[in-house]
Amino acid sequence: MRVHIIGTGLLGASLGLALSAKGNQVTLEDASPTAQQLAADLGAGQVVRSRSSADGGDSEGQSPATAADPDIVVVATPPDVAAEVIARSLETYPRATVTDVASVKTRLLESVKSLVTGEQLDRYIGSHPMAGREKSGAIAAQADLFTARPWVICSDEDTPSDRLGEVITMAEDTGASVLHLDPRIHDAAVAKVSHVPQVVSSLVASQLRHAPLEEIALAGQGLRDVTRIAASDPGLWTQILTGNADEVRSVLMDLRTELDDVIAALELGPGSTGLLAKAIALGNEGHDRIPGKHGQPPTTYAVVTILVPDTPGMLARLFKDIGDLGVNVEDFRMDHASGRKLGMVDVSVVPAIQQELEIGLLSKGWQIPESAIEREGTA
Amino acid sequence: MRVHIIGTGLLGASLGLALSAKGNQVTLEDASPTAQQLAADLGAGQVVRSRSSADGGDSEGQSPATAADPDIVVVATPPDVAAEVIARSLETYPRATVTDVASVKTRLLESVKSLVTGEQLDRYIGSHPMAGREKSGAIAAQADLFTARPWVICSDEDTPSDRLGEVITMAEDTGASVLHLDPRIHDAAVAKVSHVPQVVSSLVASQLRHAPLEEIALAGQGLRDVTRIAASDPGLWTQILTGNADEVRSVLMDLRTELDDVIAALELGPGSTGLLAKAIALGNEGHDRIPGKHGQPPTTYAVVTILVPDTPGMLARLFKDIGDLGVNVEDFRMDHASGRKLGMVDVSVVPAIQQELEIGLLSKGWQIPESAIEREGTA
Repeated sequence: MRVHIIGTGLLGASLGLALSAKGNQVTLEDASPTAQQLAADLGAGQVVRSRSSADGGDSEGQSPATAADPDIVVVATPPDVAAEVIARSLETYPRATVTDVASVKTRLLESVKSLVTGEQLDRYIGSHPMAGREKSGAIAAQADLFTARPWVICSDEDTPSDRLGEVITMAEDTGASVLHLDPRIHDAAVAKVSHVPQVVSSLVASQLRHAPLEEIALAGQGLRDVTRIAASDPGLWTQILTGNADEVRSVLMDLRTELDDVIAALELGPGSTGLLAKAIALGNEGHDRIPGKHGQPPTTYAVVTILVPDTPGMLARLFKDIGDLGVNVEDFRMDHASGRKLGMVDVSVVPAIQQELEIGLLSKGWQIPESAIEREGTA
Repeated sequence: MRVHIIGTGLLGASLGLALSAKGNQVTLEDASPTAQQLAADLGAGQVVRSRSSADGGDSEGQSPATAADPDIVVVATPPDVAAEVIARSLETYPRATVTDVASVKTRLLESVKSLVTGEQLDRYIGSHPMAGREKSGAIAAQADLFTARPWVICSDEDTPSDRLGEVITMAEDTGASVLHLDPRIHDAAVAKVSHVPQVVSSLVASQLRHAPLEEIALAGQGLRDVTRIAASDPGLWTQILTGNADEVRSVLMDLRTELDDVIAALELGPGSTGLLAKAIALGNEGHDRIPGKHGQPPTTYAVVTILVPDTPGMLARLFKDIGDLGVNVEDFRMDHASGRKLGMVDVSVVPAIQQELEIGLLSKGWQIPESAIEREGTA
């Protein structure tokens, strides 16, 4: 396929790398000539020639460079200019299917509808690969960025099936798992599973700004997990939150109601413990609905905790020993220690081989505290 | 040392295991004879004999069993009865230093002060080992539970130094890192680094209770990290939050003010993007203050991302290969994939050996997307 990518930031450049690797003919375009050239140099695709020299169709000097008859145009610009670029692309490439990678779909579709209609609108199919990093720009691009990630496609009854097929083929070429969702359902979903967690993580981290360092020294793994995504880019997130303002606001309002209940319970004192227990219990309930590894429901694994001194090669030796025992590791996690050169590694395995693993590791001299079966979801 | 532990749940039993392993003489006591016997059977210590048979000092039938002249009594009961048990212990054991393991210190100290005075009060030294699990009871006990964790001790100018030394020695015997903090500073600290993150994690998870499964299917690592501790025990957390109500409420009120700013900005629309950017930027600022591994400031590591197929032995083979290359792994993390039998493993190493590791792994057939230097704190 001939794929033209407009916008060569993290997502556009990563897409170019992935599709080029699969033998697609990829052309690149970016408002910044430097960014465009960087992505091309990294191997994400070819920079388009200017229109006048390319096909002579329009000899006017200032006309923008265009790709030669692409099958698909992917708009990977910042979200705030996506609608405009989509409309221009539908105009510029009258044969092409046009898609985008923006993280909010409803408002974007409304904007596109206000700019184009009829046959042009039928050629637009919104999509959202659920991939990203806490870094940005082509320099952070990865050919495998989309591998094993959900790629949501928002089509409707008017979408021609051959055009839908093209977008699916392209998404699958990146190694992503295609999901079909209505734009409104998509936006409600990302508000709950991505946008609200981002806001709340930032708010928790924000409370640490003025805390004395002796207080922050008590930080454990819980705080680190809750605030990891608080390191994300303010510029990008402002656009994402603005684009999904209604859905995010609605979930935040629900959350605030429950927060107010907790605050009121803390003010009331001992008589209100039921309200506090309820808040934590409702969290248990929601937590239990999050699928485990690979999108499957939570599975029961046995967790073996091993004490690992932080000296050169110890972690490697641990996994070498596990490998030598012929045990398959389902999941693992390192628990950071504070003030000590020691770590705890939790290794999840199927329960049937837990004992074998423990005996094997103990015989190789590893320290293993008591172990027990737990759900992967709580590990 | 002779250590008497009252309360043989997760913390009490783990403490017994750790101290027994170091050669201390540990006796156990629990309101539940079954829990007490279970902890003893697990090797946490000896069940105390009843007073009448022990020393004949009081032949009255109903008098509770007591330990024979302990150096330290550790009160590891649920927080809501801790003050009462501390006061009783100071009375029962007139020679002993009495400490506790409760996660909130100010209110407990006030309660103890309302029950005892003078010489008895001088023998009480509050402490808080920052260790725990999402499981409870003696059955989940681990001799290594306190290893490399902060253990906060709250002493004041009236604390006799020999008694303080005893508590420090005991804490260090468990492998913990001792910190000295004023009770108020301790409570303010745990409100920010532990209690508020718990409340907020539960509130975010709670919003998923009624979300359709097709929406939850879009969950990524960000949501999993933010909600991991939402699996915690409502009963225990109700007591912790109630005990530190003022501090937790104060931080939650600050958080709510910032949450209200975000909600207002989302309502105002495009003109308010500055407010949203500020909220995320303040989160960046707080996030950057959290120390990295082992309590040190964030260190710059190189992160190498390796694609690992989820087939038996692949993870073990990866770490065996890393071990064979002689590379020391500083940190690692597995990123769950959705709908695919594939995972991404991020391995952190010192920058100087990044290239060597990448070349080595590529030569052994591993897939490695582009890599770049990032701070451990954002990995």
